[in-house]
Amino acid sequence: MERALLLARVHGVPGPNPRVGCVLLAPDGSVLAEGYHRGAGTPHAEVDALSRAAAAAAGAEVRGATAVVTLEPCNHTGRTGPCAQALLDAGVARVVVGQADPNPVAAGGTTTLREAGVEVVTGVLAEEGERLNRAWTFAVTHGRPFVTWKFATTLDGRSAAADGTSRWISSAAARRDTHRLRAECDVMLVGTGTIVVDDPLLTVRDADDRPLPVQPLRAVMGERDLPADARVLGPDAETLHLRTRSPREALETLHAREARHVFLEGGPTLAAAFVADGYVDEVVVYVAPLLLGAGRNAVADLGITTIADALHLRVVDAGVVGEGDETNVRLVLRPPATRGGEA
Amino acid sequence: MERALLLARVHGVPGPNPRVGCVLLAPDGSVLAEGYHRGAGTPHAEVDALSRAAAAAAGAEVRGATAVVTLEPCNHTGRTGPCAQALLDAGVARVVVGQADPNPVAAGGTTTLREAGVEVVTGVLAEEGERLNRAWTFAVTHGRPFVTWKFATTLDGRSAAADGTSRWISSAAARRDTHRLRAECDVMLVGTGTIVVDDPLLTVRDADDRPLPVQPLRAVMGERDLPADARVLGPDAETLHLRTRSPREALETLHAREARHVFLEGGPTLAAAFVADGYVDEVVVYVAPLLLGAGRNAVADLGITTIADALHLRVVDAGVVGEGDETNVRLVLRPPATRGGEA
Repeated sequence: MERALLLARVHGVPGPNPRVGCVLLAPDGSVLAEGYHRGAGTPHAEVDALSRAAAAAAGAEVRGATAVVTLEPCNHTGRTGPCAQALLDAGVARVVVGQADPNPVAAGGTTTLREAGVEVVTGVLAEEGERLNRAWTFAVTHGRPFVTWKFATTLDGRSAAADGTSRWISSAAARRDTHRLRAECDVMLVGTGTIVVDDPLLTVRDADDRPLPVQPLRAVMGERDLPADARVLGPDAETLHLRTRSPREALETLHAREARHVFLEGGPTLAAAFVADGYVDEVVVYVAPLLLGAGRNAVADLGITTIADALHLRVVDAGVVGEGDETNVRLVLRPPATRGGEA
Repeated sequence: MERALLLARVHGVPGPNPRVGCVLLAPDGSVLAEGYHRGAGTPHAEVDALSRAAAAAAGAEVRGATAVVTLEPCNHTGRTGPCAQALLDAGVARVVVGQADPNPVAAGGTTTLREAGVEVVTGVLAEEGERLNRAWTFAVTHGRPFVTWKFATTLDGRSAAADGTSRWISSAAARRDTHRLRAECDVMLVGTGTIVVDDPLLTVRDADDRPLPVQPLRAVMGERDLPADARVLGPDAETLHLRTRSPREALETLHAREARHVFLEGGPTLAAAFVADGYVDEVVVYVAPLLLGAGRNAVADLGITTIADALHLRVVDAGVVGEGDETNVRLVLRPPATRGGEA
């Protein structure tokens, strides 16, 4: 299972489908074939492993084999056929499953297999499997994408000095780290205000500032028209203008496009709307080791007037990014367990 | 030397004098005696070790021995006599020194020893020795106490909600951690405003909220009279009212009393004055995982209007204190290396 998880982790891509790995084992425990899912429209991990076994020089004997798969084999025909049936057709004798399929549309694979007389073991390293597909699991369970909100602040909650200057609020290391997080999402979401004021390119770039080959969708939310020459309308990636101010409506549209993980970057007003409506599932904060004592607030008014109404989060991680005089602190926070976002 | 450092660490106390440990070794490497310094007015570590050797059942033979000491033996007569001379009188043949004495008044011990024909090795684990006496080293070098400023904030830089409520801004774990830091200092400093508004006891208490046997000095700074019934005037510890608004004057008074480490806790106006005058050598921030979006600022106006004038710090440590839904983040920061506070 650890090997299958590794296959899923290394070869999986962000997108509508989960990351899945599969290892086919002969009765003597030797590996017959390995497979993994490469994203929507491509074969599922089980079918990938079965075809590799069939293509092997000697034509590996799958009949009587054990399939180890990180996610419960699907039971429905989507872009591809049901994997449970494919495993049955191949004569697999035993299936070891990690995470149970949380998707009501596709679940039931283990039942199908058991009813056909296949031995099924479930829940093996299930937590690791879930963690690997955190956003996907959340999205198919909750019917909307998982939302990560990222903002940068000084130690005293400022995003710019009184005169509007903001250099150093994010260090180079924090910016690189942000690109790493963007690459794990399938949508980057900003407000029209950010486009008008900052004119960002909104692409994911590597350490040398070159765009990655696969780019998340760039979504811009708000009723204002975008300037025709906005950089976000350039050819580097797909861009979607969501003409609404309602986080719920925006997430519905994105969910219909099978977006699983939204990376919410700007600006404060848009973020405040998501916070107020309860649509923030994770917060990533880059804290610059600066004190300003005054200036623009990093977080906009949330309509909270008394401490009991404050948005309470749990600290999941606290660490330092960068070195020397270029250090920033990165905090990762989630709503309390009761609020969801735990997947 | 590691043993000597451990003796200093375990038995040393905050106060005017450094923490020092000493191990006396026979020519065959066996331990003759160990000593350590227990605070101002008590024997220095070297003399402590020598008297223990003399008191040993067999009367250990110190002539020809090696003395391993974490700090250069002192060369002057203060509350006690010079240790360099005591080591000479005892006939010690070799002295291994950790940190060189940064105190111009007391330095020169190794020169005295060398001139008398004793073999002297210096700089052994000197950095660890310096770290152990960070505040003391800073104070004797800079002629003023080392200042640690502690404040608590929400993720968005608030110390209370718009209506003034502030529960949960510091978790129980953060408050316990604060008492641990207070116990390492010899002065706790607040402004008269904090006394009037919050009426704190300003003692160091253990996890069960009982006061520790040794309490730092409680210093209150400002020109206002203290209320006669202020809890800080109670018998739990000594209290000093510094009738000035000038950080420099306050530190001069405290230095004259041989204070080495000031723990600056409140309020924002007092802290802003120390920051503005360049008298903050370390910042400890407890970040509560809360968002308010509005309310009282954790850091007062510092007179900074543009980002280039921001107070830049270096992140020395970032970690989580507390567990579950009670987590806080603790950040430790220092001014850049060029500004001092590096000792």
